[in-house]
Amino acid sequence: MPNPFLYLGVDVGGTFTKTALIDPAGRVLSKEVISSRGFSRKSVLAARLNGAVELLCQRAGRRRKDLVAAGVGVPGPVDFGRGLVLSLTNIRGWTRFALARFLSKRLGMPVFVENDANCMALAENRRGAARGFAHALCVTLGTGVGGGLILGGKIYRGPFFLGGEVGHIPVCDTGPACSCGGKGCLERFVGNAALAARARRIFKKRISLEEVSARARQGERRARRFWQETGRLTGRALAGVVNTCNPEVIVVGGGVAQAGPVLLKALARAVRRHAMRPIKRHIKVRRAILGNDAGMIGAALLAKEQAEA
Amino acid sequence: MPNPFLYLGVDVGGTFTKTALIDPAGRVLSKEVISSRGFSRKSVLAARLNGAVELLCQRAGRRRKDLVAAGVGVPGPVDFGRGLVLSLTNIRGWTRFALARFLSKRLGMPVFVENDANCMALAENRRGAARGFAHALCVTLGTGVGGGLILGGKIYRGPFFLGGEVGHIPVCDTGPACSCGGKGCLERFVGNAALAARARRIFKKRISLEEVSARARQGERRARRFWQETGRLTGRALAGVVNTCNPEVIVVGGGVAQAGPVLLKALARAVRRHAMRPIKRHIKVRRAILGNDAGMIGAALLAKEQAEA
Repeated sequence: MPNPFLYLGVDVGGTFTKTALIDPAGRVLSKEVISSRGFSRKSVLAARLNGAVELLCQRAGRRRKDLVAAGVGVPGPVDFGRGLVLSLTNIRGWTRFALARFLSKRLGMPVFVENDANCMALAENRRGAARGFAHALCVTLGTGVGGGLILGGKIYRGPFFLGGEVGHIPVCDTGPACSCGGKGCLERFVGNAALAARARRIFKKRISLEEVSARARQGERRARRFWQETGRLTGRALAGVVNTCNPEVIVVGGGVAQAGPVLLKALARAVRRHAMRPIKRHIKVRRAILGNDAGMIGAALLAKEQAEA
Repeated sequence: MPNPFLYLGVDVGGTFTKTALIDPAGRVLSKEVISSRGFSRKSVLAARLNGAVELLCQRAGRRRKDLVAAGVGVPGPVDFGRGLVLSLTNIRGWTRFALARFLSKRLGMPVFVENDANCMALAENRRGAARGFAHALCVTLGTGVGGGLILGGKIYRGPFFLGGEVGHIPVCDTGPACSCGGKGCLERFVGNAALAARARRIFKKRISLEEVSARARQGERRARRFWQETGRLTGRALAGVVNTCNPEVIVVGGGVAQAGPVLLKALARAVRRHAMRPIKRHIKVRRAILGNDAGMIGAALLAKEQAEA
């Protein structure tokens, strides 16, 4: 007999939104990607999500009433307790949007909303590369540089709901202004846009990050150095978190992490170089294992843990 | 009638150890500074502390049996749960020393041992400049650069007992090796030794930090710039903690903080420059108000909270 309790996991992106039916062990039973276009209109959001739920149930051969709760990850800060999206640059009209209340009415189940990097961190902590550690830092390297911090087995949200925002650790004094309001943020150096610009300078032509990765794998020196420097700068910034928050493991995910071992090794080396002695020996740096599904799995597991609490 | 419950607060230093009788409100009833010389011999430590307790009680006109518990702050990492000093560079023979158990037998009361910067943070949080905030970062600028992090109203110790070690946030890639095992640590740039060396370079002669402070107060440009740069670098490093741990207040204490407003203002400006928008507007940067007593007050308040728990 299949487990009667299921959870809906949703990972809202600026362009696409991933949805899945997830069992209590974090396994994906069925999934569906829907367009985020038109999500500024709340009725579009509700209708499209309801449609996805129907489809997901159908595909998995399950009934809608098996769904206990839903978790929704969004790419911006969230007041978790109130289910409030505080701001979102990608979707207009979602600033201070009480998404949890809105969706729980429209979907007919409890809905929990969380920052997407926090969802990813929870997923990797409960079912992925950070499993078994009560203190973990999960980082996503992509268009943005996101982070989620697990302290004492729980997502650390912080009083401003900006816990674990490692992409906004300043790495230089004078550095470029960042959309977050800060200056010299790590993201302005190792986010996709910055990397693409740097690749162009180094290779003196337009070149995709995928190609830089491919060349690095083939052993091209400039390409390897490109990823090594990216890893070194990222690792140094993360070492600051290591010496203040003492995570036992750092999990690295996101598109840029596809660059592979050359990046991850340089990152790990920098973390260890700058970490305090007792941590240096113990800290683990691992690649994320849940990939693109981490966000929706984490959202669903969060919903499960909240529903059970 | 005086409050019958009293606590012993002890702040162990490499040269001197401060002791005080402290009431439940964190007020110092009597205090005594003893030499730390010979503390490598445990019998010396026990005898001298017992002597101090007698004296403290006498001076305050109280009886030894009014003492409920003792808190001891030490300048190194501590396994709080086990009352174990993990390492201490200043006093030989204290590495992995079960100080809490040793002293509770010798003093005849429960003893709690904690890192001194954590004690300072607790004191400022409960009775000082960080009062009323559940999330606070306290920094001491002196020979070392120490830090204590209060998250959710509690000292954040971390699994390696190195929580809040802001002095070991790396601020550059190649920077000098640090005794902590890291490289390019903030302490290697704004600790007393580094500042003294920098002052010597800038002023082209041996000059005390007190004199640089005096000159800055008189408006001397080089001296002001000296402290401004110290504040800027410190503030930038702390901004990384701000964007990951989201403290609502940063409290700055320690000898170097005596440099006064020019340092503190530059530090606060740098924190705000690099902080994310929602935090920038709200974060407070304050000077510590408990001064040199913070360590022993915090140790005593910790003992009180533990004894009551």
